[in-house]
Amino acid sequence: MKIYEDDLAPSCRRVRIFMAEKGIDVSGSKVGILQGENLEQEFLSINPYGLLPVLELDDGTRICESVAICRYIEALHPNPPLMGTTALEQAFVDMYDRRSDFDGILAVAEFFRNAIEPLAGRVVPGVRGTEQIPALIERGRQRTLIFFRHMERRLADRDYLATDRFTNADITAMCAVDWAEFAGLDIPADCPSVQRWYGQINTRPSAQAWPGMKVLAARG
Amino acid sequence: MKIYEDDLAPSCRRVRIFMAEKGIDVSGSKVGILQGENLEQEFLSINPYGLLPVLELDDGTRICESVAICRYIEALHPNPPLMGTTALEQAFVDMYDRRSDFDGILAVAEFFRNAIEPLAGRVVPGVRGTEQIPALIERGRQRTLIFFRHMERRLADRDYLATDRFTNADITAMCAVDWAEFAGLDIPADCPSVQRWYGQINTRPSAQAWPGMKVLAARG
Repeated sequence: MKIYEDDLAPSCRRVRIFMAEKGIDVSGSKVGILQGENLEQEFLSINPYGLLPVLELDDGTRICESVAICRYIEALHPNPPLMGTTALEQAFVDMYDRRSDFDGILAVAEFFRNAIEPLAGRVVPGVRGTEQIPALIERGRQRTLIFFRHMERRLADRDYLATDRFTNADITAMCAVDWAEFAGLDIPADCPSVQRWYGQINTRPSAQAWPGMKVLAARG
Repeated sequence: MKIYEDDLAPSCRRVRIFMAEKGIDVSGSKVGILQGENLEQEFLSINPYGLLPVLELDDGTRICESVAICRYIEALHPNPPLMGTTALEQAFVDMYDRRSDFDGILAVAEFFRNAIEPLAGRVVPGVRGTEQIPALIERGRQRTLIFFRHMERRLADRDYLATDRFTNADITAMCAVDWAEFAGLDIPADCPSVQRWYGQINTRPSAQAWPGMKVLAARG
């Protein structure tokens, strides 16, 4: 197996943390999103959607979408379970994973991708010709704040988002918070439960599995 | 079990088709999105995210997010399988379900929610104070066209999107196409494979399981 990935993308970080929790490591092939390499023909022949990450199996089969890659790994390596073991747990993991994706990752993306110069003209991931819209910077900021508020309510009396243990939903939310902080949208002071949760899961060895974004942040 | 749902929302239609394929019917409680009922306190006490559908179990537990509801039903009623049976099938269903969601449902939503008067001020589902942005109408149209093109490529030599049989990915894509047609964004003439696929899955009894949107369309 090998994985096509980018040092900046939270979607790639999600998969690397998931794999680290399972004790899995695979070789990586870098594709630079800021450089536009994901929209060049070479990569489009690998994934026509122009998106990262892509997991390539030894027989050449390619799985795209972070959640699909995680689903595949969960089925082959069920322990420790990261996507729930009962019907209800599985549903709750999907539910909070998706909210973390829509309210977290997509909100920060809206803020970030409409603001920075290298992504001008490709605001929608994988789609050339989508121009930056200044009003979406502020909307992305507002949506990220709403994400934090929903997290705060949910985490007020719990350690983890979806079930009684660490799951894929925490990984997605963590990558959203990482990215928010990288983009300058810190956890608000009135969200102490989110701060506690974030501080706690950041001590997991898996959080260091793929330091790409933190390296970039340290560089300024 | 009961389900909170809206006659218009494709997310609700997804769950009803999924249930019909499994031979399951549950009572429904209507919440009007166009009327803003999903953002009133009564419904926010049921789902703080203000989103539909919500599946309520007999013990009062609530599952939000269409994909999470489907995951729960799949675990309890595995036949016929709609989310894959092998690790690779499960990954492929998630992969094409997610693309149908992001490229299809979200694209049509961008077109539709920025255009119609009743949704002014709540363009982002569940979020008050998000104003319509005229430029997003055209962007939504372009993204929907890209969705059709990706579908065409994938379906050129296959009957179903994700695996060799009908799955949840086809349901999501079908609801995206339904909604696109309702919004006036028809399947382009140069996408014959999508037209063939759509015509074929529309003959399934489940397609009629929840005629809300088609009723609305017939009303004009």
